Amino acid sequence: MNDPAKMHASEIRSLIRNNELVKPTSGMAHGYTQANLAILKKELAFEFLLFCQRNPKPCPIIDVTDPGSPIPLLAAPGADIRTDIGKYRIYKHGELAEEVTDIMNYWEDDMVAFLIGCSFTFEHPLMNNGISVRHIEEDCNVPMYKTNIPCIKAGRFEGPTVVSMRPIPEKDVVRAVQVTSRFPGVHGAPVHIGNPASIGIQDIHKPDFGDSVTIKEGEVPVFWACGVTPQAVAMHVKPELMITHAPGYMFVSDLRDEKFGII
Amino acid sequence: MNDPAKMHASEIRSLIRNNELVKPTSGMAHGYTQANLAILKKELAFEFLLFCQRNPKPCPIIDVTDPGSPIPLLAAPGADIRTDIGKYRIYKHGELAEEVTDIMNYWEDDMVAFLIGCSFTFEHPLMNNGISVRHIEEDCNVPMYKTNIPCIKAGRFEGPTVVSMRPIPEKDVVRAVQVTSRFPGVHGAPVHIGNPASIGIQDIHKPDFGDSVTIKEGEVPVFWACGVTPQAVAMHVKPELMITHAPGYMFVSDLRDEKFGII
Repeated sequence: MNDPAKMHASEIRSLIRNNELVKPTSGMAHGYTQANLAILKKELAFEFLLFCQRNPKPCPIIDVTDPGSPIPLLAAPGADIRTDIGKYRIYKHGELAEEVTDIMNYWEDDMVAFLIGCSFTFEHPLMNNGISVRHIEEDCNVPMYKTNIPCIKAGRFEGPTVVSMRPIPEKDVVRAVQVTSRFPGVHGAPVHIGNPASIGIQDIHKPDFGDSVTIKEGEVPVFWACGVTPQAVAMHVKPELMITHAPGYMFVSDLRDEKFGII
Repeated sequence: MNDPAKMHASEIRSLIRNNELVKPTSGMAHGYTQANLAILKKELAFEFLLFCQRNPKPCPIIDVTDPGSPIPLLAAPGADIRTDIGKYRIYKHGELAEEVTDIMNYWEDDMVAFLIGCSFTFEHPLMNNGISVRHIEEDCNVPMYKTNIPCIKAGRFEGPTVVSMRPIPEKDVVRAVQVTSRFPGVHGAPVHIGNPASIGIQDIHKPDFGDSVTIKEGEVPVFWACGVTPQAVAMHVKPELMITHAPGYMFVSDLRDEKFGII
């Protein structure tokens, strides 16, 4: 097989569709935007879209399918959301019911798929600016924390902002703010720099999701709003049926990361 | 009366609510963001929100009220959308039926109000950068044109992008792009620079909406996506009832213009 990092997004999706590449997608199709998935029934779609609109930092929408259509027309018009992700999670009334490699049997005519931006999109620019990303260095998942920063409620959807954390050397903190500010459509600038307790994080070494990473002498913990927020909030509503990607198995879109650079 | 330019947004709204200030709002409450209004029934709200989400340049959402609530919680929690605009237009099946100074008699429990960004927010930064805005100099309305740039369809909502035009001296075009790029949440960077015919505009001196302005020797017409687009598109759907502000009579929010500056 060719190097997945160098493949076009559509080649990656084709391999995934044929169950020939069932792996976490980090590093695949370099330069193409990857996205989180949340599928809800139309009955909840307006409130969820409104929630995302009111909370753009944790919930940056990349694409929303037309009700009943499995095709993400903006993000990848040749894709099918029911087959093109490596692993899906089926949640019933907020409980994980099953993990599957396609959702053909679950798809219904009143479903709406939301693709939500992911921090991969700004991690490459950070690295291109010489700012190393610790969880990539340590080959683990990014540490994520529930905060005391409330999201703005929309209908039944409410809950705290979840953030991801990257330790940044003091001398690079300003540049990290500048670089990520360029990408307001995929979480954008940090929400907090420094003291974890100020945003309700008790123990920086015990993340609520993902893995703990080393914070070295002279490094500052920097926090960005995280795409886990909308899923966590949606789960809280315990919808009859909700489908998401399995952690790490993202949707690989045809959009280039640089498309999200505002200037 | 004090100078309306120096008043707080809430003072302006209070005067408007009491019918003591029924005038176009341009120049009032300097530094506070003004917004276009579109009110639709909930039945159309998801599709309209989706349309705005898919077309963020012409349709930058500032706030969306909860169905049935007249309070724009994010943009001005002390305001009432039914009374705080100077003049409203009532459209029935796409036809202008009436112009009124409040909509208490029209408001229903299933209505959703959309506040949509307006180019006033980036005109002040242009002027602060020494780039004069012609329609302000000439004390008329900005010229607006239908283009051949299609919006991305969402349900029943579809149609062409409407743009506004400002003539910019050649030497200032780069700076105008930079300055407005800072404000992706209120139309952002231009959609086109130069030749009107390239985007389907036949005669630059015959705008489809607003007034024609002088283009001087050495100036380039620069086009920005315009907040008239979503209203024009919604009107095309001929909804049973739709309520908008009357042109020039904008909603004055509590949000500061600089809040929309991304960096």
